[in-house]
Amino acid sequence: MPIPKKRAGTPIANFDTLQHLIRLAPQSDEVGILFLEIGQTCLSYLQQFPLQELTTHIQDKQYFAFVSEKRFSRAVNQISFYDIELVKSLIQALQDKKLTQVMPSASITRACYTLAMSFACVVDLINPGDKQTPGTYFQYLVTHLLSQHYQVNPSERIRVKMGEDTISLTMDLIFETQKDNARYHVAVKNSTRERASEVWAHQRILDESFGKSVYKGILIGLAETKLDHKALSVIEICVPDQWRIYQQYIAQLSRIYYLDPPAVYMELNNKPPFIVVKSFGDFFYEDSIF
Amino acid sequence: MPIPKKRAGTPIANFDTLQHLIRLAPQSDEVGILFLEIGQTCLSYLQQFPLQELTTHIQDKQYFAFVSEKRFSRAVNQISFYDIELVKSLIQALQDKKLTQVMPSASITRACYTLAMSFACVVDLINPGDKQTPGTYFQYLVTHLLSQHYQVNPSERIRVKMGEDTISLTMDLIFETQKDNARYHVAVKNSTRERASEVWAHQRILDESFGKSVYKGILIGLAETKLDHKALSVIEICVPDQWRIYQQYIAQLSRIYYLDPPAVYMELNNKPPFIVVKSFGDFFYEDSIF
Repeated sequence: MPIPKKRAGTPIANFDTLQHLIRLAPQSDEVGILFLEIGQTCLSYLQQFPLQELTTHIQDKQYFAFVSEKRFSRAVNQISFYDIELVKSLIQALQDKKLTQVMPSASITRACYTLAMSFACVVDLINPGDKQTPGTYFQYLVTHLLSQHYQVNPSERIRVKMGEDTISLTMDLIFETQKDNARYHVAVKNSTRERASEVWAHQRILDESFGKSVYKGILIGLAETKLDHKALSVIEICVPDQWRIYQQYIAQLSRIYYLDPPAVYMELNNKPPFIVVKSFGDFFYEDSIF
Repeated sequence: MPIPKKRAGTPIANFDTLQHLIRLAPQSDEVGILFLEIGQTCLSYLQQFPLQELTTHIQDKQYFAFVSEKRFSRAVNQISFYDIELVKSLIQALQDKKLTQVMPSASITRACYTLAMSFACVVDLINPGDKQTPGTYFQYLVTHLLSQHYQVNPSERIRVKMGEDTISLTMDLIFETQKDNARYHVAVKNSTRERASEVWAHQRILDESFGKSVYKGILIGLAETKLDHKALSVIEICVPDQWRIYQQYIAQLSRIYYLDPPAVYMELNNKPPFIVVKSFGDFFYEDSIF
């Protein structure tokens, strides 16, 4: 497969091979190996750049950014960003089908964060302004992990009855498992800024068309951080009260997972209407049927 | 009021005065006069630029773009883009409170299109990439017209009950009229691309919180055109089947109005679940209670 010019020779040259493979065989070990390769290339590439410590009022978290001349990467959570050895453990554990036997939840979250963020930071430095490629890459990572977990390939479309017509609607990921006939509606977002209501709206369409919670709604987010380039500070942009309203009045999502969970969203576990928000690694430790 | 540097000396220098005035007194004749002034400045400014005819497969419509060196404005609907005399008639009729007595629906639509598009084209030429300012300008135009029509100032927030809490939620425009105690939820979008589900989601929140259709939902759009700069051709990006699903399964909008209505959305009048889509000028000829 020829590599598009703009990516050829860069640390993300393999993105297009990944794109090809994830469509062809999302569950395959080859995809896992490719993630490891891309992770290796990105992490090595980033080592040449100095780190800029960032200030933040977010409690118990510290962030830095990679700096290339005058360009900054996005803000990286210091404790969640690890090394290639942890990524190797993840990919190996997936191949051995022993993920929860050898990796605690926090390590799974960190390994995924390291993969997703190292790629995103490389894009920030070499193609600043490109938000789409890091978003797609994260979606591919989730696609690989969940399709292996559910042992089924996802669909991106769902057919909905509309009077005598059948209308095909695009969603992020739809999984319909063979065993226990469970169905999942999975939305994947690097950050949800302004776009979150769509996830609840899609869930409502599924609830109304197929019966309430026939498709379990899952939102998987990377982080909600925003870097202020002038002040070199990091904030989290969160709208927890809006989410409570969406969950109460539009539809019920069964789970929300984050790689870098904002504390104010974690607090939604304790406030009506009680949205279940967790670290992504917890996903693999839960029963499939929520 | 000082004019921010980036707009000082440009044809849209008055935008900031408008922003100030629309918050202070959206119904006032001063706002109308300011719209006329900005319209005059923008239309005069645009006269210096040659027009590029654009090709299109959209039936019964022709589009052009203003060209400044290598920059193109957005696509302008030839027949809907008129002159300052028509804008003057609109502003005069509003002041005289005789809009529907002196202007047919099509002329109102055209006058508004001319105002909104002339401003947007100026921004395209002097600040390419700025999508927000034209969007805000169109929202101000709608704010002025509707607040005069309903004789009440709009709110941008609504308070929703959530268990024991009351949560304040941001919407585009909320009108609560004195006479006949009618309430309207009005969303204003230059184009709806990818963002439409939010309008239905907000409508659902209002329906669930206050009772079905207590707030009538209205979506007002400018156009759905997209200019291909290489091919110099115009397409409309529309998702009519998605809208049918939203209307059926999320909530019911009472009306959708456009300044440049896409034919495929007008056809939604005739397909279940029968969304009422009209030209914007028709708004002023309808009963307030749909």
